[in-house]
Amino acid sequence: MDRRNFLENSFKVGLGMTVGMTANNAIASNEFKNSSESKFKIPYPYKKIDPEKVAHKAYKYYRVGECCFAAFGAIMDELRESVGEPYTYIPNEMFFYGAGGGNGWGTLCGTLNGASAVITLVTGKEYSKIIDSLYEWYSTAQLPDYVPHNKEAIVTTKPELPLCHVSVMNWCKASGYAYDTKERSERCARLAGSVARKTAELLNAWSDQKLKDISVNAGCKTKMNCMMCHSSRLLPKS
Amino acid sequence: MDRRNFLENSFKVGLGMTVGMTANNAIASNEFKNSSESKFKIPYPYKKIDPEKVAHKAYKYYRVGECCFAAFGAIMDELRESVGEPYTYIPNEMFFYGAGGGNGWGTLCGTLNGASAVITLVTGKEYSKIIDSLYEWYSTAQLPDYVPHNKEAIVTTKPELPLCHVSVMNWCKASGYAYDTKERSERCARLAGSVARKTAELLNAWSDQKLKDISVNAGCKTKMNCMMCHSSRLLPKS
Repeated sequence: MDRRNFLENSFKVGLGMTVGMTANNAIASNEFKNSSESKFKIPYPYKKIDPEKVAHKAYKYYRVGECCFAAFGAIMDELRESVGEPYTYIPNEMFFYGAGGGNGWGTLCGTLNGASAVITLVTGKEYSKIIDSLYEWYSTAQLPDYVPHNKEAIVTTKPELPLCHVSVMNWCKASGYAYDTKERSERCARLAGSVARKTAELLNAWSDQKLKDISVNAGCKTKMNCMMCHSSRLLPKS
Repeated sequence: MDRRNFLENSFKVGLGMTVGMTANNAIASNEFKNSSESKFKIPYPYKKIDPEKVAHKAYKYYRVGECCFAAFGAIMDELRESVGEPYTYIPNEMFFYGAGGGNGWGTLCGTLNGASAVITLVTGKEYSKIIDSLYEWYSTAQLPDYVPHNKEAIVTTKPELPLCHVSVMNWCKASGYAYDTKERSERCARLAGSVARKTAELLNAWSDQKLKDISVNAGCKTKMNCMMCHSSRLLPKS
């Protein structure tokens, strides 16, 4: 199959989508059957948490271990307080690596990575729809929308994609601050607050069975500006 | 600052790099001070593990919970067997969400996401250089290089970036198989084997103090084909 035919065929079934099914399908059919034993199984018990408290903690935690640690740790701390075991056995520091889109590689925004781990712990099989809601909100909202007490609002932008590189660069272009400034760092600390708060809100709504189902077309999830890589010369005419 | 000036200024300090410092800097200065208590702290104790055994387990685990679960779970299982606590307290299933670059969103390759979490658990402050080694290898190697017993080799490609979308699409273009085929799924199962094996090798080398230090220029980490977004018309002339 040559490149043109490949792309034409791919578009017929929805190019832009990378993998198609998520692990959720596998869970449904396997029920974790082959997985080695750990002492606690997901989903972990959940009690509703205070989104504002979580946001403030995430904002502060950014200064300790950046974005991924901040979002994960702020929510886990609340759950360690309100529920206790088994949340007490997982160290927040495991998520240091997610900073800067994966150890600075600019891929998955660390705040989303850390939040996704907690969502999976809490909701088990239902993680997929909650993560879709979070990533869709992140891609389309004006962020950061968390403003710390006694501080001024800052420039907000639409991240467009769950990618650190694009999210940060969009903000840098709009604000005029380069990536290596304290202003950009403050923006990402507030973003950790925003994402942790939104995650707490989604988990609370899910717990109340009030989560509004959103449908994210799988073909849209990886909408990395198709035309940039997949030149129009190669697209089918119809 | 207009777009042109922003880009010119950004290039002077290295556009392409998103965040600059990683959480490692924060660890160095904060020593986890503000982090809420969990029962076990990183780094966890480590005993060397068998890379081939890990690769085979990751390949099999892909059919249970896809790429991120597979890489994380295969290594964790070995450590639960050889070390025991505290690895016994973290469920592999927490990493289901990383499938397909984050719940199918095509960002950070799930195999790298899961592997990075184990690396951070095992090496604590030293995670950054090991993750850089892993991502740099992933970006430049011909993958998947794991071939299951009694099976034929398949097409291999250079993923170029730690992004699921690019990694999968490069392979699809070279092999002629679309993303939603069983052949692409087999490729990603083998990739989980490759990445889990490489991670085990890196951890063993680190444990023997034989890890070859690699230096990845921070400006290169997010090399998402700058020219695609950052048109040449906007670049400084010199």
